[in-house]
Amino acid sequence: MPGTPPTRFVFLGPEGTFAEQALRSIPAAERGTRTPARSVGEALDSVRAGDADAALVPLENSIGGAVGVTLDEMAEGEPLVITREVILSVEFVLAARPDTPLPSIRTVAAHPQASTQCRGWLRDHLPDAVVVDVLSNGAAAAGAGRGEYDAAICAPIGASRHRLTTLADKIADHPDAVTRFALVSRPGPPPPPTGDDLTSLAVYIAHDRVGALLSVLMELAVRGVNLTRIESRPTGEALGRYVFFLDCTGHVADVRLGEALQGLRRVCADVRFLGSYPRHRWAEAGERPVPAPAGLSDVDYADAAAWLTRLRTGELT
Amino acid sequence: MPGTPPTRFVFLGPEGTFAEQALRSIPAAERGTRTPARSVGEALDSVRAGDADAALVPLENSIGGAVGVTLDEMAEGEPLVITREVILSVEFVLAARPDTPLPSIRTVAAHPQASTQCRGWLRDHLPDAVVVDVLSNGAAAAGAGRGEYDAAICAPIGASRHRLTTLADKIADHPDAVTRFALVSRPGPPPPPTGDDLTSLAVYIAHDRVGALLSVLMELAVRGVNLTRIESRPTGEALGRYVFFLDCTGHVADVRLGEALQGLRRVCADVRFLGSYPRHRWAEAGERPVPAPAGLSDVDYADAAAWLTRLRTGELT
Amino acid sequence: MPGTPPTRFVFLGPEGTFAEQALRSIPAAERGTRTPARSVGEALDSVRAGDADAALVPLENSIGGAVGVTLDEMAEGEPLVITREVILSVEFVLAARPDTPLPSIRTVAAHPQASTQCRGWLRDHLPDAVVVDVLSNGAAAAGAGRGEYDAAICAPIGASRHRLTTLADKIADHPDAVTRFALVSRPGPPPPPTGDDLTSLAVYIAHDRVGALLSVLMELAVRGVNLTRIESRPTGEALGRYVFFLDCTGHVADVRLGEALQGLRRVCADVRFLGSYPRHRWAEAGERPVPAPAGLSDVDYADAAAWLTRLRTGELT
Amino acid sequence: MPGTPPTRFVFLGPEGTFAEQALRSIPAAERGTRTPARSVGEALDSVRAGDADAALVPLENSIGGAVGVTLDEMAEGEPLVITREVILSVEFVLAARPDTPLPSIRTVAAHPQASTQCRGWLRDHLPDAVVVDVLSNGAAAAGAGRGEYDAAICAPIGASRHRLTTLADKIADHPDAVTRFALVSRPGPPPPPTGDDLTSLAVYIAHDRVGALLSVLMELAVRGVNLTRIESRPTGEALGRYVFFLDCTGHVADVRLGEALQGLRRVCADVRFLGSYPRHRWAEAGERPVPAPAGLSDVDYADAAAWLTRLRTGELT
Repeated sequence: MPGTPPTRFVFLGPEGTFAEQALRSIPAAERGTRTPARSVGEALDSVRAGDADAALVPLENSIGGAVGVTLDEMAEGEPLVITREVILSVEFVLAARPDTPLPSIRTVAAHPQASTQCRGWLRDHLPDAVVVDVLSNGAAAAGAGRGEYDAAICAPIGASRHRLTTLADKIADHPDAVTRFALVSRPGPPPPPTGDDLTSLAVYIAHDRVGALLSVLMELAVRGVNLTRIESRPTGEALGRYVFFLDCTGHVADVRLGEALQGLRRVCADVRFLGSYPRHRWAEAGERPVPAPAGLSDVDYADAAAWLTRLRTGELT
Repeated sequence: MPGTPPTRFVFLGPEGTFAEQALRSIPAAERGTRTPARSVGEALDSVRAGDADAALVPLENSIGGAVGVTLDEMAEGEPLVITREVILSVEFVLAARPDTPLPSIRTVAAHPQASTQCRGWLRDHLPDAVVVDVLSNGAAAAGAGRGEYDAAICAPIGASRHRLTTLADKIADHPDAVTRFALVSRPGPPPPPTGDDLTSLAVYIAHDRVGALLSVLMELAVRGVNLTRIESRPTGEALGRYVFFLDCTGHVADVRLGEALQGLRRVCADVRFLGSYPRHRWAEAGERPVPAPAGLSDVDYADAAAWLTRLRTGELT
Repeated sequence: MPGTPPTRFVFLGPEGTFAEQALRSIPAAERGTRTPARSVGEALDSVRAGDADAALVPLENSIGGAVGVTLDEMAEGEPLVITREVILSVEFVLAARPDTPLPSIRTVAAHPQASTQCRGWLRDHLPDAVVVDVLSNGAAAAGAGRGEYDAAICAPIGASRHRLTTLADKIADHPDAVTRFALVSRPGPPPPPTGDDLTSLAVYIAHDRVGALLSVLMELAVRGVNLTRIESRPTGEALGRYVFFLDCTGHVADVRLGEALQGLRRVCADVRFLGSYPRHRWAEAGERPVPAPAGLSDVDYADAAAWLTRLRTGELT
Repeated sequence: MPGTPPTRFVFLGPEGTFAEQALRSIPAAERGTRTPARSVGEALDSVRAGDADAALVPLENSIGGAVGVTLDEMAEGEPLVITREVILSVEFVLAARPDTPLPSIRTVAAHPQASTQCRGWLRDHLPDAVVVDVLSNGAAAAGAGRGEYDAAICAPIGASRHRLTTLADKIADHPDAVTRFALVSRPGPPPPPTGDDLTSLAVYIAHDRVGALLSVLMELAVRGVNLTRIESRPTGEALGRYVFFLDCTGHVADVRLGEALQGLRRVCADVRFLGSYPRHRWAEAGERPVPAPAGLSDVDYADAAAWLTRLRTGELT
């Protein structure tokens, strides 16, 4: 039922990964049910089918990987919309069963992308340990919990779920790495504007001409709409047809973003709206919402509209 | 009274010039009163004061000259609007009193700009005649009529008004030269759109930066609005403040031009609307109205607006 | 002979006008011969024919008028180049023969554009005087000198040349009005860059499409070249073919302006170079040369060229 | 030694994956040594260390995933350059040990992304089989070869290497899916231009402003350089600093791409050149190289340069 807050959540599994950790940062999900899915496609399809109210899936992550799948799944099939983003620091830990001293560790289970991210730490602290590839961070923690490996590289939530002790935390070579997740639902009225929102779009243009992309950016630029992300992907359908995934500052309810969206609708082969949602708030409050540029606030739009009305009726004086 | 067709016309005098000829091509002016003014400023002020309903003044002319004055007078003081443009072929004739053979001509009266335009013809046909500078084409015809000069370079209307015989017509070196006149009134509802209209604007930008002008053009380009004229003038008020006089295709009542106008209103220091009016129709029908580019017709705008409404209410499916 | 400083000057006559006053502000012209011409075309043709070394003609003037003629004459026929600009304050004076008290003045000779510019002053100080139209500011002064009129509105140089006394100076309604003149020569090496130069161009584009003009501005914008003037004129040759007269900051010898010129050459139907010359220096030094934007100085260009060379040879490390 | 053709190749392992299949499509690699690496980082580091001459790593693949890792590894550390791209159709097969009838299959080993891509086929043909997640396509084939699973979803090369029989080929739901690989070497002179080349760049801009990206695109657009791919990634280093990975048409040795590169160098915070290399040729020859737009061929550049030289020396006539 539209407007009803979601209670049944699905997330990209398995349990004990960063996706679950991100989902649990949402109060409604902490209270509701949380079911792992085997893949992004499976998670989204369970929302489409009505088996879940919302799915938490990765959009971007500095480990590389799932972004493409999520974007492609969002761009095809029945429409879905993002209603919330969650950005999580990717803080890998080295975890082991209680009372395992670091020097005793001979085998470390890790997803290959996780061990890649922690290469420096492993070289410095466990130069002789054998790294065993496993399928996910959650599987690494589970394996260490069962005693199959001496230790695991995993998410903090994986360590606690499998009753492991954290021997070292923040072991990734890039301590600032983050993963950005999206909470995705069936279409409905977007969350109300907060003054600091993002809007995601899939924009199709007919050719890979720089001129076509320039036209898209000009539609945004003249309305003062900033891009925070742009990614091109060739579409499977036909050679020479491109889709651009854009994240723009602003909300579909804003006048200027609305005008920009209409412009894209007119000049592009197709535009799919992927949702307007509040931008992630950082506790440390580093980033501030960007105010509308001069001449582009809703007040400026209202002034210009009133002026146009006067022009059209001839009341210039 | 707004909406009442004008009956009292003023034009840039004196009588017998191209301005009078242009004015008389307007049926209402042919029926109404027609008073010459000594200057563009005087003509426009008599409209502002209510002493005349409309003024016919030159906007652009290939002889050079009055454009600047007209634009500046329109951009300052109480607002006025163009309601009609008239484009007249500048067809200079050599005229003399009846029974004056060409070889007998020793003196030719002409405005200096007119004799400049006919230099080639004079060199070929009257190499020995003395050209006497006078103040206007009308004055040249009048002087020849009074016998002060053997002949005059003037407009056809000047020849007939002063009972002169045309010894040669189309004597200008550039046979395609035209003058563009504007019929100017006090503000009121613009003439209805015809599907082939122009809109004139005075746009102020704060700096002579190419970036500022680029922004102006982008506001037009993203709405598919074409420029048919652009002219920059430094404003007297302050150094570094520029005014651009623009003629755009479209009518203030068109959706896309309306949106472009609002965009200019927001990004420019100031915009003065100088009128929407039908584009001059050529009898020979050489030029055709340019249809709206793909994606920019009123239908496309309506489609995009309906789509935006669906996005905002969440009815994507 | 190229490189030889000009000694024979021609100017837009008659004597005693602002053009002569502007010419005499150039030291070489003060020492050389100065001949009035009847028209801009005549002045330029005498340079083309080798009868004069340089011509001083008006480019822009706030009285309106000659700009179009000069531009058109420069854009056609054998190429000529601007080597210097002179900007003159248009300071109209009211002049009369010695011992003529202001209250006694009944007739004032003036060029119609001059009397238009001084309307306010005349209304306030000589409300009952009759204004007699004459052909030029110089002719007004000459007529007053001969006693044909009680006074003249003219340039300071006209008053002194005809031994008139100045009864009032700076009588124009806009005290800041200026006229910009160009000193024009046959092609030759341009004057050396001064660090604060202008370059004038006539740029032809095939259609009146805003997209075409946008392309022109983008060629300039990406090289940080500013426009200080832009003026469009339909060309006589064919409908739908436009010429834009541009004044850009920079010198043809500058790397970035050179690159921009090459870009225009490639994308435009035609480009005519009208000269690079020092920007007029104001005694009061209000305006300062605009330094190259970040990344666009000659040093930045040299750095980028060296980097490209390294890329092409593969020496990246 | 620069210029020596590579003989020691490394590829993203394990053996039997698409990367190995792609590498073997390169004749020199078919003749040389081919060593699998555990990760993209390890493959590139072995080139940096001189242990291998070239590495074959995935750039883009429609299964999603490795792109980010490769781009980030290329953008950091010691420079490397792409010298060749290989585009491989991702043709998944279902393979089993000889004499395994399809209906007898109960377990299928697959990388999760591979089974996701083949969901439709599995649902239609093996609705009751259990899909077992493994770490790579090569591991799936190896496991089936050892009899641990009844069948594997893998690359054709994985089936043949492990002596499996192909039960079904082209089982992916998107039959047109491809993976794009890059052959990466230490910096050296780029391969010679072929007339149909690509150039890859990592471009850093200081802010997420649409204006900054618009500037980048304008640098390309004015030189007629097309983008075939654009991807933005936040850099780990600092918030608000973005890196854009661009693939452009053209070769660093081309005049117009060289000029565009210099433009980017000047306006961007940083630009890293990632190589110029021939565009992948499709056997079926669907795509043709795009000729230089009007005015942007090397001939046009040479003409414009010659014209500029004439302007600078004053030889206009």
